[in-house]
Amino acid sequence: MKFARFQYESTIYTGILSEEGLKEITGDIFDTWTYTGKVFREDDVQLLAPIEANQVIGIGANYVSVSEELPKVLPDIPVFFFKPTSSIIGPEEKIVIPNSLNEVKFESELAIVIGKEAKNVAEVDVLDYIFGYTVANDVTAPQFFHEAGHWMIGKAFDTFTPLGPYIETELDPFSVRVEARLNSIEKQNSSTNLMIVPIRKMISYLSNVMTLKKGDVILTGSPVGAEFAFENDRIECEIKEIGILRNSFVKGK
Amino acid sequence: MKFARFQYESTIYTGILSEEGLKEITGDIFDTWTYTGKVFREDDVQLLAPIEANQVIGIGANYVSVSEELPKVLPDIPVFFFKPTSSIIGPEEKIVIPNSLNEVKFESELAIVIGKEAKNVAEVDVLDYIFGYTVANDVTAPQFFHEAGHWMIGKAFDTFTPLGPYIETELDPFSVRVEARLNSIEKQNSSTNLMIVPIRKMISYLSNVMTLKKGDVILTGSPVGAEFAFENDRIECEIKEIGILRNSFVKGK
Repeated sequence: MKFARFQYESTIYTGILSEEGLKEITGDIFDTWTYTGKVFREDDVQLLAPIEANQVIGIGANYVSVSEELPKVLPDIPVFFFKPTSSIIGPEEKIVIPNSLNEVKFESELAIVIGKEAKNVAEVDVLDYIFGYTVANDVTAPQFFHEAGHWMIGKAFDTFTPLGPYIETELDPFSVRVEARLNSIEKQNSSTNLMIVPIRKMISYLSNVMTLKKGDVILTGSPVGAEFAFENDRIECEIKEIGILRNSFVKGK
Repeated sequence: MKFARFQYESTIYTGILSEEGLKEITGDIFDTWTYTGKVFREDDVQLLAPIEANQVIGIGANYVSVSEELPKVLPDIPVFFFKPTSSIIGPEEKIVIPNSLNEVKFESELAIVIGKEAKNVAEVDVLDYIFGYTVANDVTAPQFFHEAGHWMIGKAFDTFTPLGPYIETELDPFSVRVEARLNSIEKQNSSTNLMIVPIRKMISYLSNVMTLKKGDVILTGSPVGAEFAFENDRIECEIKEIGILRNSFVKGK
């Protein structure tokens, strides 16, 4: 099932994608909801980021290029980081390159939406806490990484976290490919089985540190091939089973 | 004016400290609110963290020990980091030392509560966006810092962000002292004028990266003297004009 948030004539709706279009729902997507009966044509609405995230957590350097490179021993402390919720935008919104820079990196990623409070979750139970999956672009300005390794500023600019187009609740996250095309040229295309810290381990580890809440979004890392993009470039991040997250880059003023 | 959140017989209230006690208010502390007429004795209630924070941002290594050490040139990129809102606790709640560790660090800090959306704010205007100030303990497990400099996990454990006891809206943040006592022994006691990146510059810089929102809490760094604490230790973080934030340490299971 594909959940969407969208705007039509200045009102924001939640809905489910179906063959007839976007069917509006009311209620709590994480709990109980019902159809209102209203249906919108997808072409008539503006899709928004599919979730008003509680928090955004990312993991760095989490893909190898081929499975033979997967390490036998996992890192003791994975490279996790937070991104501010104020950096989230939806499909087709502009990614703003900070005015002191000429380029920023795109990073196509599978994003996990946590569906219920998760604390000390065993790896085997992790999938029970996941509501669904969307596509993320973890836009990054490494020029703003601190020399001592702190990534916060380089990941935090407004517009640096495009999410969408939908939250797919029926995905098998272990058998999808994470793709990116810059100006229609393929740059990233890897199976999620090339993750160094796999999903069950990642969420279990995090939940043993902090209580994850419903609406937390976890960016699971970006495959090899992420590059810099410039003003007027157009980026498409895609997981076929979810959809295409399209944005273009503009220069900040 | 000192704003508080507190619990009495399983109900959570917002109130203002006065000579008669905690006077309940209703409404939005950032906007309009009114007294309900109910007054609680402070001894009868349990104080909670005074704000349900939208996000928590910290700044690292932000104090010198004496003013002669203040650098002439400020760092290009300050060391900022996020802490999860799930790590927030109130006065007298227990700080839980992760079960794989024997000790964690306390760090007494002046915390800023943002009162309205702030984007591209000039240094001269920063104070207009601050709602008030509270005391924070930026509890830290440096054993979980990643060797490449990522602090996220070491700052993210549940209970690692005590806040309180009140939000003081009438503070002059430039003329207060940040203190900490571990088991009644003074460990930290510095004036906020020993900050390397001062408050106006800090908030202006952040607001030029990301849109700050009302309810964002910014921990302004910890003076020299932060140390490790162990099970059963008792920490008091204090800014006299705000109050004492008391917590003790227990070992996780």
